[in-house]
Amino acid sequence: MKIAVLGAGMIGRTIAIDLNKNHEVTSFDIDPRSLSRLEENNIAVERANLQSYSKYSAWFQSYDICVLAVPGFMGFDALKTLITCGKNVVDISFFSENALELSDLASEKDVTVIVDFGLAPGMSNMILGRANEEMAIHSFECLVGGLPKIRVKPFEYKAPFSPIDVIEEYTRPARFVANGELITQPALSDRRLHEFGEIGTLESFVTDGLRTLLHTMPHIKNMKEKTLRYPGHAQLISNLQLAGFFSDDKVMIDGTAISAKTFTSKILFDQWRLGVNDEEFTIMQINIGGIKDGKEKEVTYSLYDEFDPATKTSSMSRTTGYTASALVNLLAEKVFTQKGLFPPEIIGK
Amino acid sequence: MKIAVLGAGMIGRTIAIDLNKNHEVTSFDIDPRSLSRLEENNIAVERANLQSYSKYSAWFQSYDICVLAVPGFMGFDALKTLITCGKNVVDISFFSENALELSDLASEKDVTVIVDFGLAPGMSNMILGRANEEMAIHSFECLVGGLPKIRVKPFEYKAPFSPIDVIEEYTRPARFVANGELITQPALSDRRLHEFGEIGTLESFVTDGLRTLLHTMPHIKNMKEKTLRYPGHAQLISNLQLAGFFSDDKVMIDGTAISAKTFTSKILFDQWRLGVNDEEFTIMQINIGGIKDGKEKEVTYSLYDEFDPATKTSSMSRTTGYTASALVNLLAEKVFTQKGLFPPEIIGK
Repeated sequence: MKIAVLGAGMIGRTIAIDLNKNHEVTSFDIDPRSLSRLEENNIAVERANLQSYSKYSAWFQSYDICVLAVPGFMGFDALKTLITCGKNVVDISFFSENALELSDLASEKDVTVIVDFGLAPGMSNMILGRANEEMAIHSFECLVGGLPKIRVKPFEYKAPFSPIDVIEEYTRPARFVANGELITQPALSDRRLHEFGEIGTLESFVTDGLRTLLHTMPHIKNMKEKTLRYPGHAQLISNLQLAGFFSDDKVMIDGTAISAKTFTSKILFDQWRLGVNDEEFTIMQINIGGIKDGKEKEVTYSLYDEFDPATKTSSMSRTTGYTASALVNLLAEKVFTQKGLFPPEIIGK
Repeated sequence: MKIAVLGAGMIGRTIAIDLNKNHEVTSFDIDPRSLSRLEENNIAVERANLQSYSKYSAWFQSYDICVLAVPGFMGFDALKTLITCGKNVVDISFFSENALELSDLASEKDVTVIVDFGLAPGMSNMILGRANEEMAIHSFECLVGGLPKIRVKPFEYKAPFSPIDVIEEYTRPARFVANGELITQPALSDRRLHEFGEIGTLESFVTDGLRTLLHTMPHIKNMKEKTLRYPGHAQLISNLQLAGFFSDDKVMIDGTAISAKTFTSKILFDQWRLGVNDEEFTIMQINIGGIKDGKEKEVTYSLYDEFDPATKTSSMSRTTGYTASALVNLLAEKVFTQKGLFPPEIIGK
């Protein structure tokens, strides 16, 4: 198969390297440094400004499947353009718009489009989709986090993406379902401590991570996605937010208007940057409760993955990227052939 | 007596109003709004840029005593100029330079100069100076803080001065004396909880507040000045510092180089601003230990003062300003007539 990977960032790179074992992969990105790292792995590359949507039909004409691994802010437009060009797509750009709005377009263009196919969302949705076939689910909780092994105060946190995206996750109101009601509550709230054998105590708080599940699983009365961090992180972030450090309001400094959020992102950039050699891990626990054969049943899925020091591949790249590349293989092998746009819970089904 | 008050800020204003009852007071300031508030209180005013030191001899020629209530950064130069002009001075500008360097100049000019004459430093030094005459002191601890009555998260703090001055206090290494050794330690360290009947639990931490006492009381083996805040404030400030929010390093934003500290001060400005009607209090506890008549003796001095809602005078203005104006009266009544430069502990003696 000829596969185009749009975006050669940390996760796009991991996917390209993995898929290139069995397919003919070309990676597209605007950053020559990102591309040269892929060339070192014998992957074909094309330098391209992926916001030039008008060029997509020419660029991607010859590819069987496109993997969309661009930053979230451009994800929706890129996906819409790819569908319009009649491409099959696996999307892990995690844009904030509702992907299901593109369902009709995908059906009309007779293509297969799978969105949100990372870890959470991604694997978590697939697990729920599968469980939903086997029992009458009344509660779903997904706890997930990627964290550094070395804990450095005050944040005890590192991210492979920009602080401004993390701040966005921390400030977007979280939607979850409780007793059949859609609840919207500030992110960082509903904090609770959890013990994990591998790493000790972590703290969870709600974030707006249910995404397509809010639309595709209306019968589940309790659904919640929570982010895991070391204890105290959420309190500090919440304090920064209260103090105005995440505000979009502009402050005048030396005649320049600058938003607090922009400035704070700059301050946190070095603090939060995940170095190439920084050991980290990804942990996910999914708790599903329901009725099977007339009896209450609880199922827990646990995932723990660590940084691979040999290939210097982060657990976040591994858990997100390999889930996506496994799906590409599934499509390449024609295991899933339906046409339209599908979130991962439908694949799990 | 003819008295010039240099600076018509919160504390300079309080001093001017108090002294005008018994003396002929003129207030000098660059800010017409500050001056007009004093005119409403029937006080003579002169608009003046108090950084124009060359004009001091003309401006202050006819005054018997000058009260120096300017911002700390210009305090040392202003004081030096006043002494050079042959003026008697009561100084509460709390500059960071060592005032004792001006001792010889004050003696040479045959004037009386009293520095640091507020609450702490000020009253605290005077109390120690007095106790030092009565016993062989081995330990001195001064706990002091000004706080709002209404506690608002995350800082539970308001200040009548600029956040940048508070940040300066929080980041300047704290010097104290332990077992006869001069110790330098980060401010915000050595945290401890204390119960106060009037207000509940507060938290203390070391700040660099001993100032002249480090030079004038070399025989006291243990001396420490600590700042009081609501519990948790120091931890949050310490976290902000660790995260880089108080750094002097410049960050490039939209082509403008801005220091983190400058930006953070802007963010905190509204959070920390003490409104004219905000009720606040000042608390000070001085613990002195020593040997008197061959026996161990401990003395505790406690001060608690609240915002005056009738005159809208903050407790910080009252405790600092009235201490200074009481000293001006002492000088006016010729109770203290020595020539030279003196810190408050010498007056206490």
